[in-house]
Amino acid sequence: MIDQKFIDKLFEVKGKVALITGATGALGKAVATGYGAAGMKVFVTGRGEDKCKALCSELAAQGIECAYSTGDPAVEADVVKVVGDAVAAFGEINVLVTAAGYNHAQPIVEQDLAEWKKIMDSDVQGTWLFCKYVGKQMIEQGKGGKVVLVSSARSKMGMAGYTGYATAKAGIDLMAQSLACEWTAKYNINVNTINPTVFRSDLTEWMFDPESEVYKNFLRRLPIGRLGEPEDFVGPCLFLASSASDFMTGANVAVEGGYWAN
Amino acid sequence: MIDQKFIDKLFEVKGKVALITGATGALGKAVATGYGAAGMKVFVTGRGEDKCKALCSELAAQGIECAYSTGDPAVEADVVKVVGDAVAAFGEINVLVTAAGYNHAQPIVEQDLAEWKKIMDSDVQGTWLFCKYVGKQMIEQGKGGKVVLVSSARSKMGMAGYTGYATAKAGIDLMAQSLACEWTAKYNINVNTINPTVFRSDLTEWMFDPESEVYKNFLRRLPIGRLGEPEDFVGPCLFLASSASDFMTGANVAVEGGYWAN
Amino acid sequence: MIDQKFIDKLFEVKGKVALITGATGALGKAVATGYGAAGMKVFVTGRGEDKCKALCSELAAQGIECAYSTGDPAVEADVVKVVGDAVAAFGEINVLVTAAGYNHAQPIVEQDLAEWKKIMDSDVQGTWLFCKYVGKQMIEQGKGGKVVLVSSARSKMGMAGYTGYATAKAGIDLMAQSLACEWTAKYNINVNTINPTVFRSDLTEWMFDPESEVYKNFLRRLPIGRLGEPEDFVGPCLFLASSASDFMTGANVAVEGGYWAN
Amino acid sequence: MIDQKFIDKLFEVKGKVALITGATGALGKAVATGYGAAGMKVFVTGRGEDKCKALCSELAAQGIECAYSTGDPAVEADVVKVVGDAVAAFGEINVLVTAAGYNHAQPIVEQDLAEWKKIMDSDVQGTWLFCKYVGKQMIEQGKGGKVVLVSSARSKMGMAGYTGYATAKAGIDLMAQSLACEWTAKYNINVNTINPTVFRSDLTEWMFDPESEVYKNFLRRLPIGRLGEPEDFVGPCLFLASSASDFMTGANVAVEGGYWAN
Repeated sequence: MIDQKFIDKLFEVKGKVALITGATGALGKAVATGYGAAGMKVFVTGRGEDKCKALCSELAAQGIECAYSTGDPAVEADVVKVVGDAVAAFGEINVLVTAAGYNHAQPIVEQDLAEWKKIMDSDVQGTWLFCKYVGKQMIEQGKGGKVVLVSSARSKMGMAGYTGYATAKAGIDLMAQSLACEWTAKYNINVNTINPTVFRSDLTEWMFDPESEVYKNFLRRLPIGRLGEPEDFVGPCLFLASSASDFMTGANVAVEGGYWAN
Repeated sequence: MIDQKFIDKLFEVKGKVALITGATGALGKAVATGYGAAGMKVFVTGRGEDKCKALCSELAAQGIECAYSTGDPAVEADVVKVVGDAVAAFGEINVLVTAAGYNHAQPIVEQDLAEWKKIMDSDVQGTWLFCKYVGKQMIEQGKGGKVVLVSSARSKMGMAGYTGYATAKAGIDLMAQSLACEWTAKYNINVNTINPTVFRSDLTEWMFDPESEVYKNFLRRLPIGRLGEPEDFVGPCLFLASSASDFMTGANVAVEGGYWAN
Repeated sequence: MIDQKFIDKLFEVKGKVALITGATGALGKAVATGYGAAGMKVFVTGRGEDKCKALCSELAAQGIECAYSTGDPAVEADVVKVVGDAVAAFGEINVLVTAAGYNHAQPIVEQDLAEWKKIMDSDVQGTWLFCKYVGKQMIEQGKGGKVVLVSSARSKMGMAGYTGYATAKAGIDLMAQSLACEWTAKYNINVNTINPTVFRSDLTEWMFDPESEVYKNFLRRLPIGRLGEPEDFVGPCLFLASSASDFMTGANVAVEGGYWAN
Repeated sequence: MIDQKFIDKLFEVKGKVALITGATGALGKAVATGYGAAGMKVFVTGRGEDKCKALCSELAAQGIECAYSTGDPAVEADVVKVVGDAVAAFGEINVLVTAAGYNHAQPIVEQDLAEWKKIMDSDVQGTWLFCKYVGKQMIEQGKGGKVVLVSSARSKMGMAGYTGYATAKAGIDLMAQSLACEWTAKYNINVNTINPTVFRSDLTEWMFDPESEVYKNFLRRLPIGRLGEPEDFVGPCLFLASSASDFMTGANVAVEGGYWAN
């Protein structure tokens, strides 16, 4: 029956345990804070000890139950350790958000293989490894789960200089689609992506100069009339972690101000 | 700042006025009930006086503020009247959900033009007319708005017998994308679709027989391992009506159990 | 065996009969001329007697076997007549190209229903009617066939003012997909679309001014670095009419200079 | 002017030099043979000396100008060598077809990182390396070029066990789209993919058993009513190597019997 109780349950995430990668980045931090503010237990990971620790302190100061472990998402042993630490800290993992990533735009003929590999490893391999080991954990737990892979609006639209990043993000979309086929009916684990357009971070701050050509070009393309802010992704990530989205799996959810619509 | 208050506001829809077409159908009714249970004022419309009245009574019995007006979504004068009645009843419209639709699967060489037109008129023209007149109203109000067009998983994948329905639903997806370009930056009106796979209704009940070939074929294709229930769409429709989805516009949101992923 | 003979046969279209709608438009004329130059018998149709006649004379002067019949693609009786005339002229129809269409860009709140319907009728209903009646004919002939629907790059990307055109063209894409499901295995009729970006015609000539903002915006978006010329579509339309594309059906073939890639 | 001469030129590829990777596989061999039969000079590469040599002999026996060099597409030094050998043999490279690939379907939780990497390296890295080094060569030549990347119908639709293959092929689609943005306007190099469904090869022969469940499932899904044969891809690959497709770039061309349409 659809009533107040049904509605309340739809978006209820209190007490769920989320593991968030790339949590010290702009988007990862927003999601970690949002999840925590919504009552979830938050396990954050990133490569830098100092940043992880500082984030955890900040979250704890807001009254959020938080723990962390450091590691490189592209390194299998690190991923195994981080996942183990998360389970040790909170007993289980109910939600995974992979927000770690890397980009370096270069023409293919100028990009070294090593640099291209770094993009692919950070973006695709890191995501795959966390899916594998958190998936194992969720399957063992036997209670289902929610996986949110951070992809990009670039996953379906190329760009000069992006034979690494667009390639990697397209791969993530299809990893989600394949995992949906593999896991949802069998283990009740939903796997979706969110696909953001450019959002504000230390790395993209320069694009937000309203006088710059980059900014003007974006505004011409973006039906929503502005670039993203980290907060813009909290709602979609909560939605995909809650039972409100229980019938969605394998979806590549456009949270890109209409970039694909145009 | 992302804190408890921010989170609460994300999904807050209390007091918003929603106009829902096709409200006496299975999906429309679920959305009307869900919106009402979440505290929205619900204005419902459909072609049958009796059904609309009965739905309103049912919603009122749940304590939901509700009113209705009847009309054919494909008839311009009716749409003008219904939109006017909604404004008369609740003073404004903040959310539009177009859940009215029609299908009749037939091979193209056997389908009469009149029948094909009925599908196109019910599905595309009805949606266009409600967008036009509710859009006018929202623009005049000057407070933005949320538009959710009910499309279908069939909007991006054809089917034998579906030169009407798939054609119509594909059109709805692009109508949403075009309206996003037209309205979002300028008027703060977000326009998105939800794209359901088959869900339970009087018309589809027969497909849910686990022994039927249709059902078995669906299950082979659907990563989620089951067909839809009307309740499955309440969460996504609430999400798209709330500020949690403020950065989404022109999106065709797959709520199809992974049908497109596979 | 793949040898010279196999290759020659791949692109051989000599003697095939093509019915081309919108043949007096820029794209239709290019295709009619190209098909004729490749040895096909060309039956052209459009609404204007004078233009059809002049085109036929021009084609005949090039040594092309050509005939015509006038009619409005959106009017059922006209379509029945035109298809009948084509069969009367050449005995059969092997290839259908629907190049007729209409657009009028207007904000939805300013567009009259009648004008919107004119777009939908010209673009979608006209295409549907020709598919129905040429399909019937091809099925009766029992020799398979090739259907090429002219859609648009706008079929998958919206635009302000395009709730008619983008909606219609998206519908055409899915009509092709549905007809593929309905016809290909059963009757050996392949149905595909080509999806052009803006190409030069009387109506678009103004967009080709290199100083105009419209042109500059296109160039920013188009990986190929120029807008289209009618000749650009002859190759793809020949390909889709030949056995070289026998394994393709239900495809929406991007012939848009990379517009979708970006 | 569109006349016989124009048509003849459209599909003319005589004398062009093509480098084909994975040429000893079923699809690569069909393309190599087809290109050769159409008058192109064919430079083939694969990992096995014996197979490459045998293929070259076979092609030469058909009167095709052919040469080869062995190497692993995923190994940079090998790719540099192969590209150098091709230029040494024929003076230039006008067309690149990357038909090398690898798959091993396994649930993610059972797949070793090393095996997943092998899929990614064979499919994505090998393609990237050939694009980089052949691209460099084409840019230096200054005469444009045609690049055809063999992707898969799986690039846009996931599958259980395919977190390697579907991920890799999705990446290839976007690599093509990005290269189109990078190269086409600037260097007149067109980059497209073909996206085949399952076609007959030593590895897939078992799927063609009409009694098998796999085959029956495919037939339910495939509008064309049959799986692919290597010959089915010769036409599309010739089309994409010829000037008939000059206005196409960044396209993911479905040559999948309608798998995506359904």
